[in-house]
Amino acid sequence: MITLASDFGSPYPAAMRGVLCSRTDARLVDVAHDFPRQDVRTAAFWLRELLPTFPAAVHLAVVDPGVGTDRRPIVVTAGEHALVGPDNGLLLPAARALAEGDDGAAVSCYEVPVDDPESTTFHGRDVFAPAAAAVHETGPDGLDYPTVDDPVDLAFPEATVRGGEARGEVLVVDGFGNAITNVPGDFLAGRRGAYARVDGERVPVARTYDAVETDERLVTVGSHGNVELAVNRGRGDAAFGVEAGSRIRLALP
Amino acid sequence: MITLASDFGSPYPAAMRGVLCSRTDARLVDVAHDFPRQDVRTAAFWLRELLPTFPAAVHLAVVDPGVGTDRRPIVVTAGEHALVGPDNGLLLPAARALAEGDDGAAVSCYEVPVDDPESTTFHGRDVFAPAAAAVHETGPDGLDYPTVDDPVDLAFPEATVRGGEARGEVLVVDGFGNAITNVPGDFLAGRRGAYARVDGERVPVARTYDAVETDERLVTVGSHGNVELAVNRGRGDAAFGVEAGSRIRLALP
Amino acid sequence: MITLASDFGSPYPAAMRGVLCSRTDARLVDVAHDFPRQDVRTAAFWLRELLPTFPAAVHLAVVDPGVGTDRRPIVVTAGEHALVGPDNGLLLPAARALAEGDDGAAVSCYEVPVDDPESTTFHGRDVFAPAAAAVHETGPDGLDYPTVDDPVDLAFPEATVRGGEARGEVLVVDGFGNAITNVPGDFLAGRRGAYARVDGERVPVARTYDAVETDERLVTVGSHGNVELAVNRGRGDAAFGVEAGSRIRLALP
Repeated sequence: MITLASDFGSPYPAAMRGVLCSRTDARLVDVAHDFPRQDVRTAAFWLRELLPTFPAAVHLAVVDPGVGTDRRPIVVTAGEHALVGPDNGLLLPAARALAEGDDGAAVSCYEVPVDDPESTTFHGRDVFAPAAAAVHETGPDGLDYPTVDDPVDLAFPEATVRGGEARGEVLVVDGFGNAITNVPGDFLAGRRGAYARVDGERVPVARTYDAVETDERLVTVGSHGNVELAVNRGRGDAAFGVEAGSRIRLALP
Repeated sequence: MITLASDFGSPYPAAMRGVLCSRTDARLVDVAHDFPRQDVRTAAFWLRELLPTFPAAVHLAVVDPGVGTDRRPIVVTAGEHALVGPDNGLLLPAARALAEGDDGAAVSCYEVPVDDPESTTFHGRDVFAPAAAAVHETGPDGLDYPTVDDPVDLAFPEATVRGGEARGEVLVVDGFGNAITNVPGDFLAGRRGAYARVDGERVPVARTYDAVETDERLVTVGSHGNVELAVNRGRGDAAFGVEAGSRIRLALP
Repeated sequence: MITLASDFGSPYPAAMRGVLCSRTDARLVDVAHDFPRQDVRTAAFWLRELLPTFPAAVHLAVVDPGVGTDRRPIVVTAGEHALVGPDNGLLLPAARALAEGDDGAAVSCYEVPVDDPESTTFHGRDVFAPAAAAVHETGPDGLDYPTVDDPVDLAFPEATVRGGEARGEVLVVDGFGNAITNVPGDFLAGRRGAYARVDGERVPVARTYDAVETDERLVTVGSHGNVELAVNRGRGDAAFGVEAGSRIRLALP
């Protein structure tokens, strides 16, 4: 299986699908192609959240503002999984999550050997899709590419939790408007039905969106295991006045 | 085969795809993931229109404002088809349409047994996708889940037709701006080339969009078999000033 | 394999998928369903660019403002490929590109025999998807449909290049805002690092987007082999004040 993810929107992903179909019979499954344009960090977050739901696969992921420059094309292996994409931090967080889910498999990084590609502006088609097809045929264990010891890495900031107070930030806002923070869900453990202070204001802690009235704000633990700022049937980002990168402070009474 | 439908937008559907791929080799086919957010009625309409084009399948459908509350997760069987999703009315209209297309097969409803799911906010990933995989393995005939006698149902309002006058409403507006009403297409039978009055104004009855001039309004019978208010190469909803739920009155001369 | 392309947006493509799954076991691969509504020319451009990345396939493509009128449904064969869609110019440019990539195979055109279809407004479901399934079963060589000698054709305007000056136009703007022109990339050969004048203004000629500063304009050769007006990490169409159809003049110093 090969999964595909990019910030290409439409219709460029079709060129990757075509190249893959021309080179392999692997099953293709789309992850998403509408990651925010050239926003490596947000895409890395989603890949980390989503790829661990998949069985062993090659994951082709391209968010690549440096296309055509000398940033390296890489393969990162993590147990039975392999990730193919640019060396700009996009792949490492997901690779670590996949390795963790695979009994703590090792994460290894290789440089994809590339002849002069046809284009300097569409390596998804000309470099990464052919590489993903090749890795799929070889398998993650059979790669004889040169190893990369210093891949570009990207770490998400960690929240600071001290007793009843957490200081963190909004990592991403999802399509529903839920603001996903880096505060671990444990922070709210046992507080259902109580209140938390978000930047000083009282907001109910709820187990589900629908536990508060329509259009009311809530704090909950999202599906990613982190604290989420949300509004029942509305947009949390607007109601809390936050966006990706906004610093937030949570306090329990 | 398992079809997938939701109001998740992107990238959450990937988590359902990953879970399904991890649990079954079934072919996955997307219906749509951009149903209007938390609008159970519109999604139910589209499922009713679209699912009958598919061969025997498990249809996973999630539009679920009550995620995490005590609304039940259900499976609805209709002949060789099974639908999996929340018990909020989403599935029943499509199930009836599938049963009708399957020589009037019976529609049966079961509750999906659920252990404590990992999240309270993403049952698409943690409850419904695993259930769809399980139903796919078992088949619609082998389910030994407890039956549900009182599933939440949802009926679309029927139009009133009296002689040359029909009173109804706009059920949904599609992406082209065509306003799909609940007035049966029969109402216009034999009226091609003539005029109808829509809320009092004369509008041509046409067999095709292109039968009137560009930007001109028309009344036609859409692909769903109902009367549709449209504009050739334009948006009918804007030109007629209607939206989902708008009442309309049609009169034939 | 059957590829699918349309301007249907969502959720209508699901009806084509359902019909195809009901009639054939062919693998389905989406090209795109968000081509600009009823813009045959832009869709024809993208099909010409994208379909040659695919192996032998039936390509179902529907952008069809004349649905239900007497425009013919056609099949165009090009070597091992077949294209199915309306006779409005949509398919011919891609067919020629596929034939070129298939050792100069012949391009042949046939009319799809159609009984009275169920709808006059959704031939994607009622005419073209069934035709694509039938063509897939028969193969491009086995068609006994009547030939069409005068399919509607559509040619993209060619740029005029005289020495150091090119006059052409923007063919399409992609989702990143890159303005793809009809000026052949050869025009810029050997000019990397130099400047070109775009409508009189000096703009750097770059091999990659990232070769100029963020938000700076550049002229490059895009993945389609044509000259492209772009902005590093921004939108070229806005920065150059162009859209599809805009005439442009390039001059080399």
